[in-house]
Amino acid sequence: MSTQANVTLHDIARIAGVGLGTASRALRNAPGVAPATRDRVLAVAEELSYVVSPQASSLRLGSTGRIAVVVPHLDRWFFGAMLAGIESVLRTAELDTLLYPVGDLHDRRVFFKRLPARRKVDSVVIIAFPLEPSEQRRLELMGVHIVAAGGQSVDYPFVCIDDKIAGRQAMGHLIYLGHRRIGMLEAIDPDQPGLDSPRSAAYYASLKDADIPVDPGLVESNDWGGEHGAESMAKLLSLREPPTAVYAHSDEVALGAIRTLRRAGLRVPEDISVIGIDDHPLAALTDLTTVRQPVHEQGARAADIVLNLLQGAEVDQAVTMPTQLVIRRSTAPPAR
Amino acid sequence: MSTQANVTLHDIARIAGVGLGTASRALRNAPGVAPATRDRVLAVAEELSYVVSPQASSLRLGSTGRIAVVVPHLDRWFFGAMLAGIESVLRTAELDTLLYPVGDLHDRRVFFKRLPARRKVDSVVIIAFPLEPSEQRRLELMGVHIVAAGGQSVDYPFVCIDDKIAGRQAMGHLIYLGHRRIGMLEAIDPDQPGLDSPRSAAYYASLKDADIPVDPGLVESNDWGGEHGAESMAKLLSLREPPTAVYAHSDEVALGAIRTLRRAGLRVPEDISVIGIDDHPLAALTDLTTVRQPVHEQGARAADIVLNLLQGAEVDQAVTMPTQLVIRRSTAPPAR
Repeated sequence: MSTQANVTLHDIARIAGVGLGTASRALRNAPGVAPATRDRVLAVAEELSYVVSPQASSLRLGSTGRIAVVVPHLDRWFFGAMLAGIESVLRTAELDTLLYPVGDLHDRRVFFKRLPARRKVDSVVIIAFPLEPSEQRRLELMGVHIVAAGGQSVDYPFVCIDDKIAGRQAMGHLIYLGHRRIGMLEAIDPDQPGLDSPRSAAYYASLKDADIPVDPGLVESNDWGGEHGAESMAKLLSLREPPTAVYAHSDEVALGAIRTLRRAGLRVPEDISVIGIDDHPLAALTDLTTVRQPVHEQGARAADIVLNLLQGAEVDQAVTMPTQLVIRRSTAPPAR
Repeated sequence: MSTQANVTLHDIARIAGVGLGTASRALRNAPGVAPATRDRVLAVAEELSYVVSPQASSLRLGSTGRIAVVVPHLDRWFFGAMLAGIESVLRTAELDTLLYPVGDLHDRRVFFKRLPARRKVDSVVIIAFPLEPSEQRRLELMGVHIVAAGGQSVDYPFVCIDDKIAGRQAMGHLIYLGHRRIGMLEAIDPDQPGLDSPRSAAYYASLKDADIPVDPGLVESNDWGGEHGAESMAKLLSLREPPTAVYAHSDEVALGAIRTLRRAGLRVPEDISVIGIDDHPLAALTDLTTVRQPVHEQGARAADIVLNLLQGAEVDQAVTMPTQLVIRRSTAPPAR
């Protein structure tokens, strides 16, 4: 029988005949407690089925034993995989993961408004969105560490990929195959419309390097997600001269584009090549050529930084993980 | 020093020399407490690093304000969508979601072994796996409520779909189209090999109803996941007489099968029809015919049950949500 739920530190302190602070220090093996006293406290705790270790470890690493992970979209693979990576490391340190999904700007405002009232965590990991200065200030006032996974910051440590390099890997592949009329399905977060996209910058830089003039009609901007990719692809197909290849900002956008192409009776890659970014698990299943980013690993590295921060150790401020071209069956040289 | 993990409302009440109710009201700033008393309670709470507001709201619903969600695979869509549904409801009650991924049996054993030591939550929501009796007993001893999302139980409330009906909807569609040689890509959790699959039962029942004899060579069993679907499909293609249609236990398995068919130069649905179950977001993108299950909604309903349990209200013990056939472009009448 475990009655730990009802046993308090106070009970233990009282029965062991010590103060609360002494009981607490003894339980977490902190200095300043005589060995005999510590033994007595631990014996009482054991007798009452007050289990030391989880509390003890949480006291050792951070004060709450909990890390908040703030994540925009739990039901998208990228965020789930990032979260899985974070959690896999936090678990090894017996830290708990408190989940805060913030699907849109409204959720996010509510979260940050309430946050200062809830010093429930020692660190906050932000998955893939930039904090506003006021949001950041609130976290700092609470004394919690901030780490970004899948996004950059000048103010706190982050783990990400180099999106411009990823984009150039994708564009470089299409240009190498001989494509010169290349469309871009640009994905833009509607909550951050002004944000410069390094994946877009890669498109323009790659064209410039290859002396291919920019045709603004070949660029379609839309929200992230497959349905938007499908719509945008239809727009490119309505051009007098559609592209021979399409560079999509994500695999989901690319898969939407491929659906439009198939429905139009076009073959991928014989008629039009399509490349994405991510290496979504279904990219392998759909034979999509893409640029792989290590998502689970980015999450795990971000969590490593959290552990180091809690231990007061030095941390890397900026970790950039490599991406790589994965050639499958959705790209080929242009027809003719 | 923060010992919040160990300090209880009882400690604070006792040290401040007030009753539990008064301490609780003072901490959550409710009316009916003299200002001097409130100040004393808050001072004690602060001294003990007892954080006021989160507990205050949690005192209203449950004692910890936290709900554990135990989830096998964070990076698979089904689990992420279920989690998002659960969290969307818990958030409205200002309950926090503590995440416990248990990727395999080992993780799961560790989780349940440690659990009794951590009365950190008021309820546990189990996503889509059956608890063993010993696991269930541990939770009950802790006095935490158990709710299953996406799976059934005779012992605690659950929300799920009727997998046998879902399977019959898929099979019925193929049989209606005129297929009689129908393969099954059966997905089995390697950690629960003995478990009867209602999706498989649906296959046999549908064949029987249509007077189609069972050909065991048309059934391939494998783990969940697209790569396994791809492998199993290759086995079906090695038959002297391959099926004209394939019923896959999930969309991911179906997509793997379609990749194998495409690589073999076969057309879907002209040469072979494929149907899945789930309506994974990428099913729409890949024009896969499937049987839709409401995943986010199952999670939300499970969380509703949690809220009712915490309020001591009556709850539905068994909620079964409807599924429906979604016809896209991966199924058609057999050739010839």
